Amino acid sequence: MTVYYHDYLELDRLLDCQHLASPSSPGGVAHDEMLFVVVHQTYELWFKQILWELDDVIARFDAPVVDESEMAWVNDRLARVVEIQRVMIAQIDVLETMTPMDFLDFRDLLSPASGFQSMQFRLIENRLGVRPEDRVTFGGARYTERLAGDQLDVVLRSETESSLHDVVGRWLERTPFLDGEQYDFWTTYGRAVRDMLEHDRTVVATNPNLTDDERSQQLGAFEQTFRQQEALVDPATHDRLVAEGVRRWPQRSFQAAVFISLYRHEPGIQQAYRLLALLADVDEGFTSWRYRHALMTQRMIGRRVGTGGSAGASYLTRQAERGRAFPDLMALPTFLLPNRARPDLPHALVRQLRFRFQTPDGPPEGGPEPG
Amino acid sequence: MTVYYHDYLELDRLLDCQHLASPSSPGGVAHDEMLFVVVHQTYELWFKQILWELDDVIARFDAPVVDESEMAWVNDRLARVVEIQRVMIAQIDVLETMTPMDFLDFRDLLSPASGFQSMQFRLIENRLGVRPEDRVTFGGARYTERLAGDQLDVVLRSETESSLHDVVGRWLERTPFLDGEQYDFWTTYGRAVRDMLEHDRTVVATNPNLTDDERSQQLGAFEQTFRQQEALVDPATHDRLVAEGVRRWPQRSFQAAVFISLYRHEPGIQQAYRLLALLADVDEGFTSWRYRHALMTQRMIGRRVGTGGSAGASYLTRQAERGRAFPDLMALPTFLLPNRARPDLPHALVRQLRFRFQTPDGPPEGGPEPG
Amino acid sequence: MTVYYHDYLELDRLLDCQHLASPSSPGGVAHDEMLFVVVHQTYELWFKQILWELDDVIARFDAPVVDESEMAWVNDRLARVVEIQRVMIAQIDVLETMTPMDFLDFRDLLSPASGFQSMQFRLIENRLGVRPEDRVTFGGARYTERLAGDQLDVVLRSETESSLHDVVGRWLERTPFLDGEQYDFWTTYGRAVRDMLEHDRTVVATNPNLTDDERSQQLGAFEQTFRQQEALVDPATHDRLVAEGVRRWPQRSFQAAVFISLYRHEPGIQQAYRLLALLADVDEGFTSWRYRHALMTQRMIGRRVGTGGSAGASYLTRQAERGRAFPDLMALPTFLLPNRARPDLPHALVRQLRFRFQTPDGPPEGGPEPG
Amino acid sequence: MTVYYHDYLELDRLLDCQHLASPSSPGGVAHDEMLFVVVHQTYELWFKQILWELDDVIARFDAPVVDESEMAWVNDRLARVVEIQRVMIAQIDVLETMTPMDFLDFRDLLSPASGFQSMQFRLIENRLGVRPEDRVTFGGARYTERLAGDQLDVVLRSETESSLHDVVGRWLERTPFLDGEQYDFWTTYGRAVRDMLEHDRTVVATNPNLTDDERSQQLGAFEQTFRQQEALVDPATHDRLVAEGVRRWPQRSFQAAVFISLYRHEPGIQQAYRLLALLADVDEGFTSWRYRHALMTQRMIGRRVGTGGSAGASYLTRQAERGRAFPDLMALPTFLLPNRARPDLPHALVRQLRFRFQTPDGPPEGGPEPG
Repeated sequence: MTVYYHDYLELDRLLDCQHLASPSSPGGVAHDEMLFVVVHQTYELWFKQILWELDDVIARFDAPVVDESEMAWVNDRLARVVEIQRVMIAQIDVLETMTPMDFLDFRDLLSPASGFQSMQFRLIENRLGVRPEDRVTFGGARYTERLAGDQLDVVLRSETESSLHDVVGRWLERTPFLDGEQYDFWTTYGRAVRDMLEHDRTVVATNPNLTDDERSQQLGAFEQTFRQQEALVDPATHDRLVAEGVRRWPQRSFQAAVFISLYRHEPGIQQAYRLLALLADVDEGFTSWRYRHALMTQRMIGRRVGTGGSAGASYLTRQAERGRAFPDLMALPTFLLPNRARPDLPHALVRQLRFRFQTPDGPPEGGPEPG
Repeated sequence: MTVYYHDYLELDRLLDCQHLASPSSPGGVAHDEMLFVVVHQTYELWFKQILWELDDVIARFDAPVVDESEMAWVNDRLARVVEIQRVMIAQIDVLETMTPMDFLDFRDLLSPASGFQSMQFRLIENRLGVRPEDRVTFGGARYTERLAGDQLDVVLRSETESSLHDVVGRWLERTPFLDGEQYDFWTTYGRAVRDMLEHDRTVVATNPNLTDDERSQQLGAFEQTFRQQEALVDPATHDRLVAEGVRRWPQRSFQAAVFISLYRHEPGIQQAYRLLALLADVDEGFTSWRYRHALMTQRMIGRRVGTGGSAGASYLTRQAERGRAFPDLMALPTFLLPNRARPDLPHALVRQLRFRFQTPDGPPEGGPEPG
Repeated sequence: MTVYYHDYLELDRLLDCQHLASPSSPGGVAHDEMLFVVVHQTYELWFKQILWELDDVIARFDAPVVDESEMAWVNDRLARVVEIQRVMIAQIDVLETMTPMDFLDFRDLLSPASGFQSMQFRLIENRLGVRPEDRVTFGGARYTERLAGDQLDVVLRSETESSLHDVVGRWLERTPFLDGEQYDFWTTYGRAVRDMLEHDRTVVATNPNLTDDERSQQLGAFEQTFRQQEALVDPATHDRLVAEGVRRWPQRSFQAAVFISLYRHEPGIQQAYRLLALLADVDEGFTSWRYRHALMTQRMIGRRVGTGGSAGASYLTRQAERGRAFPDLMALPTFLLPNRARPDLPHALVRQLRFRFQTPDGPPEGGPEPG
Repeated sequence: MTVYYHDYLELDRLLDCQHLASPSSPGGVAHDEMLFVVVHQTYELWFKQILWELDDVIARFDAPVVDESEMAWVNDRLARVVEIQRVMIAQIDVLETMTPMDFLDFRDLLSPASGFQSMQFRLIENRLGVRPEDRVTFGGARYTERLAGDQLDVVLRSETESSLHDVVGRWLERTPFLDGEQYDFWTTYGRAVRDMLEHDRTVVATNPNLTDDERSQQLGAFEQTFRQQEALVDPATHDRLVAEGVRRWPQRSFQAAVFISLYRHEPGIQQAYRLLALLADVDEGFTSWRYRHALMTQRMIGRRVGTGGSAGASYLTRQAERGRAFPDLMALPTFLLPNRARPDLPHALVRQLRFRFQTPDGPPEGGPEPG
């Protein structure tokens, strides 16, 4: 069968989806309306692609057992989302070639349409794990307010489906390395963290460059940190942090994320660490895009009031900070250790984290290695 | 004379400015410390370049009369700053290849050094026009707290020198087109803006898609907008906005900025408009970089308390929103008009805005045109 | 009327243009086929936008007289194309997240479809001014070989329509400043250029760091340069360069481009210079994209033979170098002068290049200036 | 000890390495010379960082046995180089804000300095594995021609040291999976590749859309491909390709690269595949940067003859294509298979490629899995 580029890409239809509203308006064709349409349409195509990747990743994780071979696909898909986010951010520079005056030429025709209404983007947020309660409400309206029919159904259903946050949390929870018999990792680790935090506290307490205000403010902050550190081993403290919205994952998932970060170079952990890093990238990528979007909106419409309930710039800035799907990853760094302070893993565990083709004890005692 | 690349760029010295602190520490060489040093040093080189450009632009504007030929140089320098800002933002992706654990390997050695302390960046902010009162204080400390000696002097002196904000404001204030005799621009324009705002208010009042909360919130916002619009013509209202920190430029400068935005295609105004657009780009570029910087810091140190009075992530986020040098430019869009609603300029003024080589009345009546 | 985001952007149709070929193939769904489709569709949307901008620019220039106010619009549209090109290049990074193996999963289904076949991109090239003879032929086939029906008609017609290259060439040709009476610019300028070239030749002849081979090779090259410089004033020499494909614009257009580059800071010339710089940006942007496209293709299919007459990587590399629309702009730098060596313009001409609102002789003698 | 940002970064010295040549020249300060210096200095800082990363990676691989835990560090360092390359390319946009005229203001003062002379960049190329014979000679001069003293020594020595190309080649050569007893991978694989190539040949032979010229050209190309495919199993054919410069790695290394690409999802192979992908990224990144550099040079100096033996644009374009360190990676795609055509690995080998903590036979038969 002969396939033509033009037909394969369905260009007759794709390139016939740009019908401007301005030509039939009193002002006539607003030249920049085409840009507005094309930029938003490319965003929607990217959103579709991101959903395609996220759905695949969630499906692979949403199983009682995830084979290690899945990590190759999962990480590749997330790395792709990160590249798409770079393009999404670059597209804002394109949209900003439109001046506020040129936007005014057709702004009224769109009322009350607004970028606030992309169903696909809300789906992306839900798939990642942004919860309804993480969203800034706008004038009391729910984030689904402007959706109707099928679109509303799809978005509401996605609230109840497994998110990437949840399936990764459950996968982390099942990590088997954390509690081998005779292996008291958390005691050793907890001591090392406390040593580090206490050392930091001493530095602060004796730092002659700090003003008194700074010092007392920072020493106060240490108390919170100590309490959070306790949550690593005390289930009740962890639950309280969850209730306060400071943690989202179960305690054991958070522990696994700490463990994976510390021992990321062990063969059996390298891909798991890459996953955590990519999730942080994706989360930060959307936050970063939201900030750029907020700045662009502010430049385009200033503090002008939207006419259609569209989201103003200050709303967008607040939402940028709220719409994180993986807040636990942001909390991790507080509980990490320098490489030199990291407790050694017991020999038997190191052995488990190696490949079968590797000699159990590694190169020193071993025979030929793969590379 | 023979000049060698290596000598010309002073590479013997430049490449001998990277002395890591970690090799002499108990943990030994922290591989990623080199990245930390190199990234910050490239930032400092870019800061030097940006100051080089800003100083030149300010010097050209800081004169009783600015010849129109200066606009070519001024706009080129600002466009260069915008390109440098893109690189500055891309560099964050490089720094983020360092993991929080790798940072911990040498973080303590730097205490209390922090990016918070770049003298050059503070100079850039002051040159642009960020005022001490626009800065978020950190634990009560002034932004100059960690500077000493010559560096402190330089920064304090820059507070008193002409900033880009100020020299552009004075240049705008001298714009001669705004008050020709018999030319009542502000009356015509004011009517057009009020028409637009009232039309918007009606749309809001009758929009069935708005919730009651949204509607009343937005109608309330219109009252503020009407008051701000009054400030365009009423000096007392303008002065009150200045006192409240909502405006910074003199009324006449703000008027000139509105005028320039509306008639940006007139030959005599094209470069002035490009200047305003570039100032908005530069301002937004630094804000955008600060947001990315805040996100990166959060990822690297989490909510961990800095040991040296270094600025945490939440401080950085707040400063990103505060450190705008040109807030008036952000306020502009509210008072602009679509191209079709723009009042016609009087014939005599249009004539003044043309080149001498153009026939006074333009193509229709005129003879041969230059191109 | 109420307009919804979803309807306005025609998302029902837009997001229904991605029908993969792989699901009905023996191998089943090829996950990455969606990426392939979406990336190419976003390119086609950007192509549509670029054509929208180029058509507008050409229409504004394709007139016997171009009012100076047009320059604002023209330059803004071209600056937008440059931003779109940045996104186009960034999208290659997205496509490269697909591995060669994943591409193989659906490559056969597309045969003989290939990116070689985008009608819109050929239109862009023709609109810019790439001529059929500038194209690398592929196996003897014309670049229109794979087009049919309406698409073929549109592309063939565009070969005969005014290109951006042509309309700008004609606009430059009409530049009125070049030959005022008593104004012998070309004599003065020609002397300055010859001085510079002869100085360079002496440096080369006496440079002790050059090998004999290098020296003789470079001295030979100077002879060519002197001949090209002659073409600036001698019509017959210029015509010979045109016949050889070394120049495309008429002599007078090339002269105007030199003049505009040298006196780019004069008020009446600033926007014309910006136009030339943007044309060089656009030309270089597409060349740069073609190179990246060639590298990506090489990585994806190696030196594998295409099955559908699709263009291999080496073809793409050659085309990247050939498909320049504005070769004269690349030739310009050879004939430019440092700012200090630039001949002064006669007083009367400087006056013509000023705005009417400026005092004829500029600030020194003049009264209040506009800013 | 108190460490200050300013002292730690050695800013007093770093920011005192920019001494312009123009202020003492007849033309006075050339404003853009600062940009020229700063851009090149930031490049040199990035080069230092890249060498820091490459040296570390080579040291880790340059051992008889490479433990699998090294892959985490190695891949992270190479991923960092890729991010630095993005910044290097973005910096070209900054340098291009300088006009050719502004460059002329100080170009002569640098003679014969040129970017051609960066010792560090030559070191990078040698470290990667670019050989002297891969370099385009310039007027007969060797690439070390303009170096002297210590710098020459360092570069010459690097020619004899282990390059990344070589140590990775040796590591690949030691891959143990390729020839298990009773495991006749290459027979099965060879058959699958030949089937694919023959299928492609039939498509070409019967494709009605090809012109006769295209068809015969492509069928001819298939003969070459079949011969190259033979080289995968026949040592003599492989050696001939090496002699012709079409291959660089030993046959067994090339085989390993094919194997790794095909089975990249197996746990024991995921990081090895990531390594190959990153090497291709790095190689392509430098090629891409060289192309952009060539385009920038052409724009800045046109076809003007350099005065100091500096490399012209056409030289740079040719070098961009030549300076590949990993040509074998570019040849790989020809010999890959779609996922569905990939031969199954024997059970015992799959088992070897799993972690010890995994049950030998994977999820279906196995017990609880790690996540």
